[in-house]
Amino acid sequence: MTKTLAVNAGSSSLKWQLYEMPEEKVIAKGIFERIGLKDSIVTVKYNGNEDTKTLDVNDHNQAVNILLEDLKAFGIVQDFSEITGVGHRVVAGGELFKESTRVNAEVLAQIESLSVLAPLHNPANAAGIKAFLELLPDATAVAVFDTAFHTSMPEKAYRYPIPAKYYEEYNVRKYGAHGTSHMYVAGEAAKVLGKPLEELKLITAHIGNGVSLTAVDGGKSVDTSMGFTPLGGVMMGTRAGEMDPSVIPYLISETDLESAQDVIDMMNKKSGLSGVSEVSSDMRDIQAAKEEGNEKAKLAFDMFVDRIQKYIGQYLAVLNGADAIIFTAGVGENARHVRTAIIEGMSWFGMEIDQTKNVRGNFGVISTAESKVKVLVIPTDEELVIARDVERLKD
Amino acid sequence: MTKTLAVNAGSSSLKWQLYEMPEEKVIAKGIFERIGLKDSIVTVKYNGNEDTKTLDVNDHNQAVNILLEDLKAFGIVQDFSEITGVGHRVVAGGELFKESTRVNAEVLAQIESLSVLAPLHNPANAAGIKAFLELLPDATAVAVFDTAFHTSMPEKAYRYPIPAKYYEEYNVRKYGAHGTSHMYVAGEAAKVLGKPLEELKLITAHIGNGVSLTAVDGGKSVDTSMGFTPLGGVMMGTRAGEMDPSVIPYLISETDLESAQDVIDMMNKKSGLSGVSEVSSDMRDIQAAKEEGNEKAKLAFDMFVDRIQKYIGQYLAVLNGADAIIFTAGVGENARHVRTAIIEGMSWFGMEIDQTKNVRGNFGVISTAESKVKVLVIPTDEELVIARDVERLKD
Repeated sequence: MTKTLAVNAGSSSLKWQLYEMPEEKVIAKGIFERIGLKDSIVTVKYNGNEDTKTLDVNDHNQAVNILLEDLKAFGIVQDFSEITGVGHRVVAGGELFKESTRVNAEVLAQIESLSVLAPLHNPANAAGIKAFLELLPDATAVAVFDTAFHTSMPEKAYRYPIPAKYYEEYNVRKYGAHGTSHMYVAGEAAKVLGKPLEELKLITAHIGNGVSLTAVDGGKSVDTSMGFTPLGGVMMGTRAGEMDPSVIPYLISETDLESAQDVIDMMNKKSGLSGVSEVSSDMRDIQAAKEEGNEKAKLAFDMFVDRIQKYIGQYLAVLNGADAIIFTAGVGENARHVRTAIIEGMSWFGMEIDQTKNVRGNFGVISTAESKVKVLVIPTDEELVIARDVERLKD
Repeated sequence: MTKTLAVNAGSSSLKWQLYEMPEEKVIAKGIFERIGLKDSIVTVKYNGNEDTKTLDVNDHNQAVNILLEDLKAFGIVQDFSEITGVGHRVVAGGELFKESTRVNAEVLAQIESLSVLAPLHNPANAAGIKAFLELLPDATAVAVFDTAFHTSMPEKAYRYPIPAKYYEEYNVRKYGAHGTSHMYVAGEAAKVLGKPLEELKLITAHIGNGVSLTAVDGGKSVDTSMGFTPLGGVMMGTRAGEMDPSVIPYLISETDLESAQDVIDMMNKKSGLSGVSEVSSDMRDIQAAKEEGNEKAKLAFDMFVDRIQKYIGQYLAVLNGADAIIFTAGVGENARHVRTAIIEGMSWFGMEIDQTKNVRGNFGVISTAESKVKVLVIPTDEELVIARDVERLKD
């Protein structure tokens, strides 16, 4: 019995989950918030307890130091040698990393070199890796890439229709994201459906604050909605998704946005549900406002559903039909009215929800027996995939 | 019996077609090319003759003067009073023009004010209108807008998921294009199918050098692929279509493209089939190169088909099923291999081409009797729509 940490380091946060392996039992988890800011918040949950404290955490290295001390102080770990592996979520693996990879100095340098593809995420991911390499040098370190699952896409799907040199010389292409989640729920769906993943055509819909859909053919990603960065694809909580690029110079010329980067920042942070509704980026708030008659919230909801339906329609075309559609992540797992609006508007395709199954907390198949395309809800678990990959890649 | 001119004025060109109305008989047509440049080319076709001359045509006013002289010189018109109407294609009607409109000074000023939405097209359209107003002051002048057909789109389709103020204060939304063509072929398809247009769900695919698809429900456009400008939507001959907007600041930062406008110019003029294949923007050249084993041409072809399939899939979702898909315009009418590649990859939806009908020059239904969704080829005729609208709007 050994312990494995699954780590997700953001620019000002570090989430972690500690597993007993190979039992896959979560024995503790926690989060550091506001790293590098005043009054950082440190939360640890273990064995039914929750411990929260506020102090200044200057950087990821200090956060990892505090984490390790806490693990001992709370009796979760007796000796650090029990932690034999640490798995790290890394957002951008570019074309270099097609699968989870053990980290050495070269791999770490490559992850840092890919920061241009994920400027907010990869430097933070690398900082987390460095801190653990220093403080737990004997544990197996593994990088698990958000993009790896999508490296199976055919060229016609990942290339943009711009001059070839921008791909060949500058690596501009679709990389996708949420790969770990799409891969996990596709595998779980195959178990629920009782068929080999290799024989299934699936559309996975990861609908959280970020949203992406993937066409999965025989267990491989053949297309996904996020693009060069996670801004691409559908409308999200605060992100716009893809659109006519001509909007950008027009906004620079006509509004107080001064550069293309200003526009992209607006499209990443102030758009989506939030920008249209002027209420919130959170689907629960949108739903509440809509029920109170807020027209902008209703429009935001209708647009959100419309964009997801359009991706389901296009991936039905890409796959030439599908066995099942899988909803996952915060909204996908919990918002039954969103699932209903999406699927009821697509009855022509032979999809029908069984409303007795479409209830909060019920997972698995939620479509009727007659539904030609099955509809499933599967809770995602990216941390478990990370822990499993660490286990698999240990000596 | 009267004569009506249908006019399409571009920045350096002016195309025209002269009809006898109400017989809808084309009695002459022609084109001015290279207006404002050295060695402009003037072509007139009438009664089996073709006359071409090269001279310097400085502006649209001079072009219209030459046109009128030629009509008399070739005996096509005895007196200008025979020309009782002139219809003008106008690319951008914004939210102001929901249908074809008689032109007066106010309408002309409004068309000019919409130039910000079509900077290459509207000023030229307005120049053509002005020239005819001056030289044929007694003829009824009508503006026929490319965007008018799409003004029936619901708000969820035409709004972008960016902050509401950019729509409310700056009119940033999807306007679409090719509306006259989509409207015309939808109407013709209803005749071929022998059903009232009001009862049909249709997907119209205008595939020329520009490409757009429209979801037509009961004769009304409910969604279309082109966006704020004609750059939106699918991959085209030289245009990229829509994509993750993050690509733009990246290209500005990493390549010799210096501004968002530079990137948009590249996406309008050097992308699409041309940019990916490095062969040509013309599908006939792509097909030839592909048959010779050119891998980049094959990729461009595959991407082109993929993007059109994705829009058919999404409009099947938007319409919740369709009665028919209609191919039109240069490639749509003539490229049987493109139609085959698109439809054969979507057999799951119940579409099947009858290859004995899928031959050049055969119009109407090209799908099998069993095909659940019918597939049609309908030649477009935007000039005829313009002439009819002039006739309809005459006193």
